[in-house]
Parts: sequence; structure tokens; C-alpha cells
Amino acid sequence: MSEAFPDIPKIPFEGPKSKNPLAFKHYNADEVVAGKTMRDHMRFGVAYWHAMRNTLSDPFGAGTSQKPWDDGTDSIENAKKRAHVCFEFMDKLGIDYYCFHDRDVAPEGKTLAESNKSLDAVADTLEELQKATGKKLLWGTACLFAHPRYNQGAATSPNANVYAYAGAQVKKALEVTHRLGGEGYTFWGGREGYATLWNTNIKREMDHLAAFMHMAVDYKKKIGFAGPFYIEPKPREPSTHQYDSDSAACLNFLREYGLLEHFKLNIETNHATLAGHTMRHELEVALAAGALGSIDANTGDELIGWDTDQFPTDIYLTTQIMLVLLKMGGFTTGGLNFDAKCRRESFEPVDLFHAHIGGMDAFARGLKIAAAIIEDGRLDNFVKQRYSTFDSGIGAKVEQGGCTLEDLEAYTLKNGEPVIGSGRQEMLENLVNEFI
Amino acid sequence: MSEAFPDIPKIPFEGPKSKNPLAFKHYNADEVVAGKTMRDHMRFGVAYWHAMRNTLSDPFGAGTSQKPWDDGTDSIENAKKRAHVCFEFMDKLGIDYYCFHDRDVAPEGKTLAESNKSLDAVADTLEELQKATGKKLLWGTACLFAHPRYNQGAATSPNANVYAYAGAQVKKALEVTHRLGGEGYTFWGGREGYATLWNTNIKREMDHLAAFMHMAVDYKKKIGFAGPFYIEPKPREPSTHQYDSDSAACLNFLREYGLLEHFKLNIETNHATLAGHTMRHELEVALAAGALGSIDANTGDELIGWDTDQFPTDIYLTTQIMLVLLKMGGFTTGGLNFDAKCRRESFEPVDLFHAHIGGMDAFARGLKIAAAIIEDGRLDNFVKQRYSTFDSGIGAKVEQGGCTLEDLEAYTLKNGEPVIGSGRQEMLENLVNEFI
Amino acid sequence: MSEAFPDIPKIPFEGPKSKNPLAFKHYNADEVVAGKTMRDHMRFGVAYWHAMRNTLSDPFGAGTSQKPWDDGTDSIENAKKRAHVCFEFMDKLGIDYYCFHDRDVAPEGKTLAESNKSLDAVADTLEELQKATGKKLLWGTACLFAHPRYNQGAATSPNANVYAYAGAQVKKALEVTHRLGGEGYTFWGGREGYATLWNTNIKREMDHLAAFMHMAVDYKKKIGFAGPFYIEPKPREPSTHQYDSDSAACLNFLREYGLLEHFKLNIETNHATLAGHTMRHELEVALAAGALGSIDANTGDELIGWDTDQFPTDIYLTTQIMLVLLKMGGFTTGGLNFDAKCRRESFEPVDLFHAHIGGMDAFARGLKIAAAIIEDGRLDNFVKQRYSTFDSGIGAKVEQGGCTLEDLEAYTLKNGEPVIGSGRQEMLENLVNEFI
Amino acid sequence: MSEAFPDIPKIPFEGPKSKNPLAFKHYNADEVVAGKTMRDHMRFGVAYWHAMRNTLSDPFGAGTSQKPWDDGTDSIENAKKRAHVCFEFMDKLGIDYYCFHDRDVAPEGKTLAESNKSLDAVADTLEELQKATGKKLLWGTACLFAHPRYNQGAATSPNANVYAYAGAQVKKALEVTHRLGGEGYTFWGGREGYATLWNTNIKREMDHLAAFMHMAVDYKKKIGFAGPFYIEPKPREPSTHQYDSDSAACLNFLREYGLLEHFKLNIETNHATLAGHTMRHELEVALAAGALGSIDANTGDELIGWDTDQFPTDIYLTTQIMLVLLKMGGFTTGGLNFDAKCRRESFEPVDLFHAHIGGMDAFARGLKIAAAIIEDGRLDNFVKQRYSTFDSGIGAKVEQGGCTLEDLEAYTLKNGEPVIGSGRQEMLENLVNEFI
Repeated sequence: MSEAFPDIPKIPFEGPKSKNPLAFKHYNADEVVAGKTMRDHMRFGVAYWHAMRNTLSDPFGAGTSQKPWDDGTDSIENAKKRAHVCFEFMDKLGIDYYCFHDRDVAPEGKTLAESNKSLDAVADTLEELQKATGKKLLWGTACLFAHPRYNQGAATSPNANVYAYAGAQVKKALEVTHRLGGEGYTFWGGREGYATLWNTNIKREMDHLAAFMHMAVDYKKKIGFAGPFYIEPKPREPSTHQYDSDSAACLNFLREYGLLEHFKLNIETNHATLAGHTMRHELEVALAAGALGSIDANTGDELIGWDTDQFPTDIYLTTQIMLVLLKMGGFTTGGLNFDAKCRRESFEPVDLFHAHIGGMDAFARGLKIAAAIIEDGRLDNFVKQRYSTFDSGIGAKVEQGGCTLEDLEAYTLKNGEPVIGSGRQEMLENLVNEFI
Repeated sequence: MSEAFPDIPKIPFEGPKSKNPLAFKHYNADEVVAGKTMRDHMRFGVAYWHAMRNTLSDPFGAGTSQKPWDDGTDSIENAKKRAHVCFEFMDKLGIDYYCFHDRDVAPEGKTLAESNKSLDAVADTLEELQKATGKKLLWGTACLFAHPRYNQGAATSPNANVYAYAGAQVKKALEVTHRLGGEGYTFWGGREGYATLWNTNIKREMDHLAAFMHMAVDYKKKIGFAGPFYIEPKPREPSTHQYDSDSAACLNFLREYGLLEHFKLNIETNHATLAGHTMRHELEVALAAGALGSIDANTGDELIGWDTDQFPTDIYLTTQIMLVLLKMGGFTTGGLNFDAKCRRESFEPVDLFHAHIGGMDAFARGLKIAAAIIEDGRLDNFVKQRYSTFDSGIGAKVEQGGCTLEDLEAYTLKNGEPVIGSGRQEMLENLVNEFI
Repeated sequence: MSEAFPDIPKIPFEGPKSKNPLAFKHYNADEVVAGKTMRDHMRFGVAYWHAMRNTLSDPFGAGTSQKPWDDGTDSIENAKKRAHVCFEFMDKLGIDYYCFHDRDVAPEGKTLAESNKSLDAVADTLEELQKATGKKLLWGTACLFAHPRYNQGAATSPNANVYAYAGAQVKKALEVTHRLGGEGYTFWGGREGYATLWNTNIKREMDHLAAFMHMAVDYKKKIGFAGPFYIEPKPREPSTHQYDSDSAACLNFLREYGLLEHFKLNIETNHATLAGHTMRHELEVALAAGALGSIDANTGDELIGWDTDQFPTDIYLTTQIMLVLLKMGGFTTGGLNFDAKCRRESFEPVDLFHAHIGGMDAFARGLKIAAAIIEDGRLDNFVKQRYSTFDSGIGAKVEQGGCTLEDLEAYTLKNGEPVIGSGRQEMLENLVNEFI
Repeated sequence: MSEAFPDIPKIPFEGPKSKNPLAFKHYNADEVVAGKTMRDHMRFGVAYWHAMRNTLSDPFGAGTSQKPWDDGTDSIENAKKRAHVCFEFMDKLGIDYYCFHDRDVAPEGKTLAESNKSLDAVADTLEELQKATGKKLLWGTACLFAHPRYNQGAATSPNANVYAYAGAQVKKALEVTHRLGGEGYTFWGGREGYATLWNTNIKREMDHLAAFMHMAVDYKKKIGFAGPFYIEPKPREPSTHQYDSDSAACLNFLREYGLLEHFKLNIETNHATLAGHTMRHELEVALAAGALGSIDANTGDELIGWDTDQFPTDIYLTTQIMLVLLKMGGFTTGGLNFDAKCRRESFEPVDLFHAHIGGMDAFARGLKIAAAIIEDGRLDNFVKQRYSTFDSGIGAKVEQGGCTLEDLEAYTLKNGEPVIGSGRQEMLENLVNEFI
């Protein structure tokens, strides 16, 4: 099979002084930072749906993306060819993982049986490619939002036959993910929500969704799939409202239905900001609940109200993400999956390289900065000091339990007006800028 | 004591043809709709902080509100005078309930002891007024956000002395609420959140907040206060992020810390839309969790990014609120508290009447329309029909439990491509318009 | 040719008590309101691209729309069949106008010459249908955003060959619009803007755009097309920023380049709110500049950050639009074009009828309410009174010209602190509710 | 007079390796970058209203700011003391300019005459301080939004007496600005807009506003004030809508009323983003119209819907601002005025230093990066190349004028489908990151 990117060599690391746009300036896979190689910190993933399948159409215009290797058909042959291209792409970028939806890698057939057969056939190729290259599947998922049958939801469809179809599709996707050694499995509830409350029974839909998730947990155990399930929060788009709107909404659902032990969250920057939160907020909320699983590494435009899925290049963003990751002790099964697409105006194959290189370099810088901030210690010390009144006395009693409102009143009547120190936000922002 | 509104009589009900701006056109307190009087459906409340204390200043200008009865001092005498004015105001509007923060009704003193004493003194007056008029306290609360000591939070302050002060204040506010027969007690976490994550330990703050809530629950039991606690979600403002950001975030917190049985939610329209949700969404989420307690009846401007706290006059909004309330079977301890203020440009005492009359009439129309929609039955029937595939067969099996992914796959392989009906959003919107 | 909607009769007017979803409850075409028939006030238009061509795909899923008459090909035969369907649709709804882009009505060929030929062929059919039915073209336009060649703009493309292509396409679209007796011609600059400022020369692009508009004006004169040109503001989507972002931005551009006399604005509700303005604001701004031309009648969801193009059913919205129109004295060449699509979940042909009926009824109610408010006079009188200090004395001097800062100072030193009356927003909102 | 900041020395430049939070790491006033000293590039200004007068109250709580030098009274003596403090503050930071509103520097009296007298008295002190220190007034302005009389606007008030008062106030503020050698004069129309369209006559208000501006222009000429007038765009807050909503709206107004030659724009980051634009967009629009005058240097939080007026520390932001400024050739009369306030939680005097140091350092880095990008040339070359088809042939004909739609059609028929290159957004973002 001929190369898809014949003019593009394996992307080398050339260091910060290089002016070669097709070289890494910061990402040096085997360089050790904070005790681990960059490769192991990052666990970068290619999103098959964007890199291999996105035509770059938008609601106002046709696709622009140039994919000379793709014959435009829905044949299995073409699907297998794409798999080869994807592995060539990963190889040239030095990316170790990929993620896919069932319908990205293999065509949907006329029947479920036919679709399953196609998926198996392409999985054969993927398996071979994984073996040949050592690349791995970060996570798999089923596409439960693109086909018209899912227009009113999948696991929350008002129609039980659609629900059944979705279940069947997840079963197969789980099997394939397991076969390919996927390290996790993701649920993004793109149409699990509603278009309008006038026709919707929220409670019944949530109950159905929980039943669905429990069935998936049971099946995962049955087939011996040991990886975690991830839920990926997003507040809206395509739906008017999606039940998994943000980290807190997902956690609430998981707690209500006794699912928390089986799920972690897959947090995406652009989804966080669409929900009105910072990426760091969503990560911290997930981390505080012990439920931060994986990351969809992209960025949005906060002035734009839809999912732009841009490649992340802002160093402030990547620094904050890496700070949370370092605090967590790094990924176990998760990774940094580039759920990002080139702009519709960046339609050439080489743009895919520019995009990923930029994202990888931005995270490499974020890692190095985050590690430096931690090593420096001033930031952490400030925060520790800020809460120090809870380390002893009345504060410690509060933390240990057993304190009452009467205690607090007595304390206050005795001690009078409290004196609180400045939050020093400006000084801390300056401090962070020392490392950027 | 002379009247505060000498030129304004008790607001009469004059029916929809009246052109008298100081008459109700729809709210007829003792008219029975859907089996109950309007008065009992609505349980309207006056928000003391807005009606009696809001000067209508904003970040760019001084207060404009004309309150000729108020001498502008922080004296207890003045505070008691305001209480009389508030009861005159409720009387003239035919509103049965009021809500307050401790610091709205009585001045903050130099010490906690002094503040408590002031609060007791004004509570004497409020108690007398309640007895004399039959008016009731819908809920009380403590103001834990206005004083500079709380600039970095109260129950989530990094400073244990501030935390203690907040606990002492809540203790007293609970006692006064209990003494005045308050039907509930509300927590709005205005500064329970953060300005910046650079100086914040989310987990530690959440733990402190939960401990605080448990102490309040314990104390409530101890003093025999039987009313529910309410949490009032809001995503931000004044804080950059508030932990109680929306219904789902509150429920998640309550579940995580074992507090759900003790709390219900107090949902506010303007807070819902600031969180990117519709009011109806927030109500439905709370209702689905059995946690819809009370409502802060106002509206926002969805094109404006801060809390405008406007009086609700949109019939579509009030119809949807009343539909949810009728579905719930009505309030138990909660009510429709007008957490709304006149525009800064509407600074005369009579504007307070226009504002409340408009809100009350809008809810009266909403009630009548909601009752008519329910009686008509077409909307409910459509929704019931839409989920009917879950009433038998595979759908029923899903709902009853015991269904597996294998079952769903087998069903789908046998039954083929599902056929789903149109969601009919446009038809349903037209149907609702028949009743507006 | 067989009917496309065999089961749907001509939609009758049955009055407000009808429960027939396929009947008008308020829109009675020949009923006279405020001196004109409803038909003449409204001048409703069908948007060809939505009603006939929208597949209801979205960025996350395939089209769902059922169009049994459409064979799915790009043939001219199919295109002509659609034209017949559109006219049947208009006939059954009693809508007199339609609007189209060149590429909606006829397929794009392999060359410009071929495309032009196709367009001519379909225009033959449209012309016949117009003659046979009396239906008219409200406005035509060229689609300069869907084809990949326009991915970086058309009249603001950085590529002169693309610019030339756009010019050629506008020339032809103008000719066809003229031939079909179009009453206006619209420019929507969907990609006239930028994706990123890093690669953009705003000034040069604006100059090119102005040159383009001047060429169009020259050509319009040359062929004798007498209708107005419309610019349609929208702030973003698909572009990151569109130059015609709102009414003020369009007017600024038209003034800067000496184009104002040749253009009016075509204002769309959903575009207004995406720009952070109310629809009424945008209409009033255009009207104040004498530049309100036509209206794209739809609505958005203010909590959603993209163009949802929903059918307008909110009576408050239609009332405000009709108030502005009545103030203007009604449309001359413009109309209410339903630039709206069914929800993706509302995919049946009958949903197209529900959607348009709902919109037409909502505007009929808006018209009647607006006329009643004007006849009542209280609102207008309030506003007139509010500015009455400018009708004489120093205010009149300001309005007449010739007043100086010295005059104002002398006046103020003499007259002291001004007394201003309440803005009475709450009372006015209640007043409007009397008519809803 | 004793020092207000006795523990804080003159802030030294210590270079990027310094860990002293009270030192500049990048701003080195006399260092030459791109042909000018940093001092001359930046022309930093202190905003008197924030630095000296902001109590850090917000709508939900009292002020927290500690200003030990301020006795809290409205006396002239206190006002003069503040002036001294401000000059000490500027001196210690090495800031050369300041900006004020009339009511920031001097108290409002009971009458206009009294207010004018107070202003004169404080201006005496300011004049002395300027002479003694060489510090200068960047611009002055009148506060036409804080006093209750302006609750419905000043130059757009519906009340002619209020309008007159505003005119008198502007007259005096202009005189004082002139006397103090102010380099410009700013109009921020905080309440020049509306709360609701129900009570508003936009056209009449705009006419009044224009008349007001013409009077100001006439008076400026009369007294010989040679500096420019600036309009400062902001879309809303405090008003629901402000007429000067963004750069385009301001330019449209100025063009419509023949005022463009007398005004430039004063662009503020937080106002730009509230209007849905990037700061760079607003700057570029102003620059393209030859109307970029001055900059209010702050930043907002794009996830927050109100004006947070934070100190700018994001290097991407400052780089883009400096790129535009370098393209313009630098300020003439304008400067970088820190219209920013400390967070309410950062209430100590030293926080004012942290805040300004961080902003100054961020701009210093932005300047050096922008200069490096320009010197490197790759970015500019890319953009130049991108438009190169307009440098000759049909493109040049378009730019020179005289091209027609017929020409464009003939060209296209001959040349066929255009080929356009990738926009390369990702590559350009990576390129910029090379310099960050």
C-alpha cells in the first residue's frame, strides 16, 4: 500500500529554535519530566472521526477536506484503506493511541447483522495494524447520534425499538473494543436529552438511561472487559439540552442510579466552556469525586456558542490541564485524545499535521510549565497557607467532625470579628506568568 | 403609625377589562381553579430585601429608590418601621407570605451579640405583626455574602474564624425563623464558590460546606424546626463560580454528602437562565428528584449576563411554572416568592405595586392556562403516546428490569430497523398557543 | 403531476375555537386590520431552501426529512418537480410569496455555464407557475457560501478568482430575479468575514466587498431591476465573525462606502439575538435609518449559541415586530419570509404545515394585538409625554439646533437639580399584557 | 504629607529571573524595542476611579478595599489627599499618565456651582502635582451615569433638564481637562441607551446625542482644546442596551451625524468581549476606519456576562494589542489606561501594586513578542501572499475600480473553477506560539 502522506516524513523533535513547521519544538517523547517520559504523561490519541472521517462540512456548506486516499465509497475496502492511513498518520506523528466510534471505522450496513459483519472485518485490519505497530486503542464507542433512527435519542429515545437498537450497537462496540484491547469505553450522549420539554418525560428517560448503563456494566463484566466506562459531559448541541450537561450533572446521575463505581468522566475543553465552566473547573470537579478518567483535548472559542472543536494551542490552557493531571498522579487508562478538527479553511492533508503538532507541542509546554510551578512550590504553599486555620483549633474540629453550630457561636462570641487575608489573585496570576 | 402608601388602596380584583393599573385583572385570590383557590396555589411571598431594602443602586450608580418612610439610619426604630411598611404593603396587595435575610430586617451591630439582640428586637415586631394580620413567614435565611468578612465565602471560606461566624449567624437565623413560624429555611451560596482556582482547594471547601450543612440539620432537629431546608442554585455572580451552580450540581452535592433527605431546592428563573437552562428544566430536574421545594419568582433577560431580577410578566413562563406545580400537586411548604426588584428607573413607591400586581396577574393567567391545558388533555396524551412502546413488550421489560444487551440485540436482529414518529414540536407549540 | 400533499387540503380559517391543527385560528387573509387586509400586512413568504431543500441534517447526524416527491438526484427534472411542490405548498397555505437562492432551485453544474443553463431551465418552470397561480417572488439571492470554493469568503475571498466567480453568480442571480419579477434581491454574507484574524486583512476585504456591491448596483441599474437590495445582518456562523454583524455594522459599512441609498436591511430574529440584540432593537435601528426593508421571520433559542431557525410562535415577539411595521406604515417591497426550518425530529411533510400555520397564526395575533395597542393609545401617549420636555423651552432649542454648552450650563445654574419621572417599565409591561 | 505606601519602594526592573513580586520582570521603561522606548510605546495610565476610588463593593456586598489614607469623607481636603496618593502611586510604578472623571477627583456638591468650585479646587492640586512630577493627564471625562438624575440617560435622557445638566457638566470637565493639559477627552455612554424599548424613542434620543456631541465639538474649538474626543464602546451594563455598543455602532453614529472627523475610539477589552467580539477585532475595525485613539487596558472573563474589569495578564491578548498598535505606528495622544480593578478579595493596598505590575509586565512581553513577530516576517508574508491574486490581473482591476459584473462573468467563464489555498490557521497559531 502506498503512503498517504508521501511528502511528509516522521515528525522530528528539533527543539524550540527550529523554524520547521513540520517539527516538534517542545514535544520530545522520551524526555523525562517530573519522573516520567512525556509519552507516558500524555498518552496522546488520534480521534478517528476527525482525522480520518471529517469532511469539514458545516451547516452552511459542503465538505472541503482533501483526502486523496479515500475513494468516497462506503466499501469495506475503503474502510480498511483508511485504517492504514490512520496508522501511517499516527506513526509519523509518534502518537501511540487512537479512539473510534463503530461507524467511523466501518460502514453501516442495511441491517444490524450486516453492520456488525463490516465492523468485524475492519476490526481484523485494525488488530493487524495494532500488532504490527504497537499502537493501541485508547477507547472505543458506539455512534448513537448520527443515524436518523436516533433523532430523538438512543438510550433515551421515546421508542423502545430504537432503544433496543442502541443496546445492540453498544453490545457490539463493547465486544470490538474488548477484542482490540481498548483501555476504556466512552459514552457521549449527543442526543440523550431533549429538543423540547413539551414532548418529554425527563424522569422516564433518565430511568431508561440508567437501565441502559446497568446493562452495559453487566455485559462488560460478562465479557471480561476490564477497562473503565467514561461519560463525556456536554450541555447541548445537537440537542437543546443533554442530560450529561456537565461534570456535576453526570456525577449526580451516576450517584442517583448507583453507577458511580463503574464510570469515570471524559472531559472535553469545548464542552466545558459551552456549559459555562472552565476546563479546569470540570477537571477539578471530576477529580474531587475520584472520577477523572480521560480528556478530550481540544479548545473552543468562548465567544462562539457551538462546538468548534479546535486544536488546543493556548499555553495557559494546557498548563492548567497538566497541573490537574500531575496532581492526580497522571492517567491510568485515559489519555489526551485530540477530539479536534481542522478549520474548514484548512483542508489539505498537511493541515492535519500542523494541527496535531501544534497540540502536542502546546501540551509539552504545559507539562514542563506545570512541573516547574510544582517544583517551585510558591503556588502550592500559598494555597496551603490560605486554609491553615483549618489545620488546628476550631477549624480542625470542623474537619474532624463533631463540631456544632453552638460551638461555632460560642467561638465567635468569644473571638469577635475575624480577620481574613487577601486572596491575592493578581499576585498569583503574575506568579504563573513567571513560568509561561 | 401613619400609612406608607396613603394614596394606594387595597388592590381590588376588577377583571380583564379593567384599565385600572392598580387593580388585578386576573388574580382573584379566592377563585377556585383546578380544585384550589388561587391563593392556595400561589402562596405568594414578598422578598423583604428587595421590597423594603433595595436602594436600586447598581455597580455604576447610586440608589434611586424613594422610600419616604425610611429615615436612612441603621436604627432598630427604623427597622421596626420598615416591618410595619412591609405588612401594609402585603396587606394592600393581598400577599400572605414574606421572606427575609437576618440583615434585611435588623441592622448588623458591632458584635455578633449586638446583632443578635437587634434581630430579636425586630423579631418581636414581626411576631406582633404576624399575629395581628395572619401573614406568615415563607422562609428565613442568613445573609452570608454582603459583609466584607465573607468576601471569600462563608461556609467555604478558607478562614475558619469566618466559617465559625457564619455558623453562629445561621444558628441565630434558624432560631428566629423557628420562632416566627417560618415554613422553611433557605441557603443561597452567593460566595460559596471561588473567584479563581489559582488559590482554591475545591475538595476541602466542599467538605467544609457539607459539615456546615450537617451542623445546621442537627441544630434544626434540636430546636424542633420542622420545615425543610432549601438550597438555591445559581451558577455565578457574585462569585466566578458558585458550587450550587444548578439543580443537578446541588443534587450531586446533597447525594455525595448524605444530605438529600434534609434539603429541597428553591429554584429561581433568573438563576436558571444564567446557568444556561430554562426555568422549566430546572424545575423538572428538581421534581424528578423529589426535591422541588419553593420558587423564587422572577425573570431575567436572556441577552444579559447578570442577574436582573425582573418581575415575571411573560405568560409563557408562568404557564410552564404552573404546569410543573400542578403536576407536582402544588406546594407544601414552598411558595412563589417575588425575588425581584423594580428597575432602577422605576424608583417610586407606586412602582413596587405595579411590579407585584403584574407578577401576580401573570401567575394567575399561567395557572388558568396550565389548568386548561391539563383539562384539555391533548398535550398529556401526546406525551403518553410518545412513550407507549415502553408500556409493553421489550420496552416494558426494560422498565421492569432484567433486560440485557443480549436481549436488545436479539430483539433488534429479529425486528429490524425501528420506525419512530415525528416529535411534533411545532404542532405542540401551536397547541399551547391555543391556550395563551 | 400528482399532488405532493394529497392528504392535506387547503388550510381553512376556522377561528380561535377550532381544535383542528390544520386550520388557521387567527390568520384570515382577507380580514381587514388597521386599514389593510392581513394578507397585505404580512406578505408572507416561503423560504425555498428550508421548505423544499432542507434535509434536516445537523453537524452530528444525517438528514431526517421525508420528501417523498424528491428522487434525491440533482437532475433538472427533479428540480422542476420541487418547484411544483413548492407552489402546491404555497397554494395550500395561502402564501403569496417565495424566496430562493440560485442553487436551491436549480442544480450547480460542472461549469458556471452549465449552472446558468440549469438555472434558466428551472426559471422557465417558476415563471410558468407564477403566471398560473399569481404567486410572486419576494426576493432572490445567490448562494455564495455552500460551495467549497467559497470557504474563505466570496466577495471577501482572499482569492480574486473566487471573487470573480461570486460576481458572475450574482450577475446571473440578479438576471433571474429580474426576469421573475422579484421585488427585491438579498445579500447574506455568510462567509464574508473571517475564521481567524491571523490570516486576515480586514481593510482590504472590506474594500473588495464594497467594490462588489457597487458593481451589483451598477448592473442592477443596467438591466432595469428596480427592486431594492437587502443586506441581512448576522454576527457569526458559519464564520467566526461576519462583517455584516448587526444592523449598525451594516449601516456603517453602507455609509462608509456610499452605498446607503441602494440598500435596505433584511432583519432576522435569530440573527438579532445571536448578535446580542432583541429583534425589536434591530428593527428599530434599521427603521431609524430609513433602511428597514424586509424580515426573515423566525426565532431562535436565546440559551443556544447557534442559528436554530425555529418557526416563530411567541406572541410577544410577533406583537413587537408588527408594532414596528405598523409604525413604519407597512412593507413596500419586503415581507415576512419564513426563514425557518422544522426541528430535525419533525421530519414528516405535515410538520411543514404545522410549522407554517403556527407562524402565520402567531403573526396574525401579533398584528391584531399591535393594532389594538396603537388604537388604545395609552402606550404611545406615555412615550410622547416622557419626552415632552423637549417639545418646548431648552429642549426644543436643543432639537432645533443652535443650543450650546454655555446655554445648557446657564440653564442648569438657574434651574437647579432636575426632577425626572419614573420610567414605569413594570407598568408598561403590565399594560402590554392587557392586550396579549 | 506622609507616604500612603510606606513599605513599598519604587518598583525596580529586575528582569525575568527575579522572584520579587514587587519588581518588574519585563517592563523596563527606557529599554528600546522596535525603535522606541517601552515607556513611549505604552503610555500607561492609572484609572483614578479604580485605583483611588473603587471600594470593591459589588451588587451583593459592601466594599472591602483598604485605603488607610482616605478618611471616608467627601471633603475637599480628603480629595486633595487622594490626589497626592495617586501621584505617589504613579511615581512608585513609573506610570506617566492618569485619567479621571470629574466626580472621581472632586466631590459632587449640592449645586452645580458648588461642584464646579470643588473641582477647581482639586484641579489646583492636580496641576501642582503634575508640575512637580512631570506626570500628565491622558484624558478626562465627566461622570454622567452615577448620579440618580442620570438614571434614564444623560445626553439621551428623555428629560431636557437632565440633558442640560449633563451639558453643563461636560463643559466644566472639558475646561478642567484643558487646563490640566489633558491629551484627550473621553465619552463613555454608560446610560446612553435604554432599559426597555417600551418607553423609548430611539431616533429622538440619537438626535439629542448627536446634538450634544456637536455642542461639545464647538466648545472644544472655542476654548482651544486640541486633543481628540474619544467614544468608548460598550454594549450593555448598566443599560440593557447602550447606543455605543461596539466599534461599528459608534462609527455608524459618527458617520450619520457628521462627527467622524472629531472623534476616535477608546477600545476596552472587556467591553469588546461583552459585545461578542475579540479585542483585536474591535481594534482592527477602529484602525481600518482611521479611528483608533486609545485603549482601556483590562480583560474580562469570557464565561462571565458582566464587566469584570480585571487586570490583563494574558500574553496572547497583550501580544495582539501590541501588534495592532505597531501596525498603526503607535499612539499619538492615546495610551494604555488600566481601566481595571483588583478583585473584591484582593483588598489590600499592595494588591494595587501587584495588579499594575502584572499588567505592565504583560504588555511589555506583548510588545517584545509583537516586535519579534514583525521582524521575523513570516506571518506578514503569509498574509500578503494570501491576497496576492489582487495584486495583478482581474484582482488589481477590482481594486483599481472600473471592474463590472460582466467582466467578472467573462473572466470566470474563461478561467473555470478557481483553486484556493488553505487558510492555514493551525500553522499560523503554531507560528505565533514560537514567539510566546
